[in-house]
Amino acid sequence: MAFGWIDEQAELRRRAGLVRTLRPRPAGTPLLDLASNDYLSLARHPEVTEGAARAARTWGGGATGSRLVTGTTELHAELERELAGFCGFEAALVFSSGYAANLAAVTALAPHGSLIVSDAGNHASLIDGCRLARGTTQVVAHSDPDAVRKALGGHDGPAVAVSDTVFSVDGDAAPLAGLAEACREYGAGLVLDDAHGLGVLGDGGRGAPHAAGVAGAGDVVVTVTLSKSLGSQGGAVLGPARVIEHLVNAARTFIFDTGLAPAAAGAALAALRLLRREPARAARAGAVARELYGRLTAAGLEAVRPDAAVVSVRAPSPEQAVRWAADCRAAGLSVGCFRPPSVPDGISRLRLTARADLSGAEIERAVRVIGETRP
Amino acid sequence: MAFGWIDEQAELRRRAGLVRTLRPRPAGTPLLDLASNDYLSLARHPEVTEGAARAARTWGGGATGSRLVTGTTELHAELERELAGFCGFEAALVFSSGYAANLAAVTALAPHGSLIVSDAGNHASLIDGCRLARGTTQVVAHSDPDAVRKALGGHDGPAVAVSDTVFSVDGDAAPLAGLAEACREYGAGLVLDDAHGLGVLGDGGRGAPHAAGVAGAGDVVVTVTLSKSLGSQGGAVLGPARVIEHLVNAARTFIFDTGLAPAAAGAALAALRLLRREPARAARAGAVARELYGRLTAAGLEAVRPDAAVVSVRAPSPEQAVRWAADCRAAGLSVGCFRPPSVPDGISRLRLTARADLSGAEIERAVRVIGETRP
Ligand SMILES: Cc1ncc(COP(=O)(O)O)c(C=O)c1O
Ligand SMILES: Cc1ncc(COP(=O)(O)O)c(C=O)c1O
Repeated sequence: MAFGWIDEQAELRRRAGLVRTLRPRPAGTPLLDLASNDYLSLARHPEVTEGAARAARTWGGGATGSRLVTGTTELHAELERELAGFCGFEAALVFSSGYAANLAAVTALAPHGSLIVSDAGNHASLIDGCRLARGTTQVVAHSDPDAVRKALGGHDGPAVAVSDTVFSVDGDAAPLAGLAEACREYGAGLVLDDAHGLGVLGDGGRGAPHAAGVAGAGDVVVTVTLSKSLGSQGGAVLGPARVIEHLVNAARTFIFDTGLAPAAAGAALAALRLLRREPARAARAGAVARELYGRLTAAGLEAVRPDAAVVSVRAPSPEQAVRWAADCRAAGLSVGCFRPPSVPDGISRLRLTARADLSGAEIERAVRVIGETRP
Repeated sequence: MAFGWIDEQAELRRRAGLVRTLRPRPAGTPLLDLASNDYLSLARHPEVTEGAARAARTWGGGATGSRLVTGTTELHAELERELAGFCGFEAALVFSSGYAANLAAVTALAPHGSLIVSDAGNHASLIDGCRLARGTTQVVAHSDPDAVRKALGGHDGPAVAVSDTVFSVDGDAAPLAGLAEACREYGAGLVLDDAHGLGVLGDGGRGAPHAAGVAGAGDVVVTVTLSKSLGSQGGAVLGPARVIEHLVNAARTFIFDTGLAPAAAGAALAALRLLRREPARAARAGAVARELYGRLTAAGLEAVRPDAAVVSVRAPSPEQAVRWAADCRAAGLSVGCFRPPSVPDGISRLRLTARADLSGAEIERAVRVIGETRP
């Protein structure tokens, strides 16, 4: 029978304690949120939701076509201009998701005969980009510019190194200056995914590449998502105008995808303007993360020192991670739970996200609950 | 220098007349729209835009996380229930785009050792799904159930056939009953992309699979997009509950992507409810397309008989197609222009889309402009 093998896989998942189920949430919840990627607490900010509402009214519920046909509104162009300006790049191109932006950047910048040097800890969307690209991928050790050097040295022809700026699972930062230097030595391009850096790192939240002094360089291309710090949906590629022009002509997830919905563009633009006006939000998210980390380790929990707003806490097993997260939830705290196959190293963890508006009392309460429910 | 090869490609594009540029459109335009995929004229319908606005206010500018963490709201669950019910399937799963839904369906249903039989005219997102999947892809002749049979007969193990229901370039329909029969003979699954069928074909717009009597079958999985007839953004996979459960656990573009923005879910849900209440919109879009086709061919133009709401008109060359579309625009008519590499067969065409609210006078005017500007 068609799809018969699915039931065997479901049975294996059940036995391994790895079944995932969806839990639809209500609009108002008493849970303390340390699970979302809403780092700057902007997703429900009235300026952001009004930005979405106004854009839907002005431009419609959808973009109505590919960006190349009817799907580019003046709102998209405005968002692209402001995003590029804020992050310090010549140009930007907005996509329907960060995932689509990553597929576009990697596939369009790694043609046949090229080499992609990809960090072992990269996000799934970058990995899928590598798999879709015509170039050859070499996976290198995590956050290791010398490993990148070695890979680039063994290749003749166009090459790019690809890395998250802040790794999504453990929240550790990549050595951007070292990576940029390694790439320059070999004339290679550098593609950085700043999904978890934008809004948190750099001057006023301009992102990790800006903080590292590599934003706007001719050989650096950055992808961002509008779905985390900017509280919306969508993604963007930032880079030299000639690279953006190339993407317009060559990136399949740009050409063959409907443009980002106006409401999402409007929400992201409102969030960006808010962040410009209130730059302290960025530093606050980082400070909350460091306070969380300090208190968790003081309580004897094994956590990874956060470089941005993600704090990762190790769990002994997938089953115990799930139980731990469920116990937190029962005690009023929402935390993320990452298990195989969503973690590259097979280690399960609680994933906590710092939000700019978490109070000292809330941080204290979160740490107490996590400590009290530990397996 | 990094990305140096980009300039050579840009030069080649320029010489071949294949440069694409973005043309940001204003919110109000006097152009007659025969270019968007807004088949039911719902993208700017006040119920749809209010659906978006209300959802943004109630749920926020973004879903704030993966559907598996914080990104599933009750609104997503509601949309999934109503979509599945409307189209005649047991369950549905909503994605951030139709592109992402297609990547998910194909990759998750074609494991290592399986065969994917893919129609030569399939959409880029299905093709990328095939390229990402662990299974082996065999491309078969366009709309040919016997070719599918032959491919399936040569394979031992799980298999799926994959096809658009209405092909995006020429607007012709796939032989769904024949494909389903071929798949059943071999115990293979059938994955259908109903992006251009939903809202236009089937009873009240329930889609091409519903019209062909294959909706809800245990071996049929359908993908749809919320960005065309439903005037929003996003996509969905429809199928048996066990298949949907499998996708929740295995589909990378579900697990590692932020959930669809509430505004987009709200807009799509409002459009779906409107379509239920006003089922005649669906038939009207098809009737407009047939009238367009009849008048175009009567005027001596070479067009493809439309099976849904897309009408394709052949152009002699890419340059002439671009000029033709520009001349239409200058005369107040917006039409799509498809050129290599966006067309599998290298033939350039104008792509016209019928919208449910086009009047007889507008259709007449469109045909007159297209005739007068023909190369
Ligand atoms: C590092 C990283 N890159 C890309 C993405 C994808 O972005 P989006 O969810 O906006 O598609 C995510 C998470 O979702 C991520 O964590
Ligand atoms: C046949 C087909 N499938 C899938 C898609 C992708 O859907 P979306 O634009 O919603 O990502 C499109 C067009 O965009 C399409 O024409």
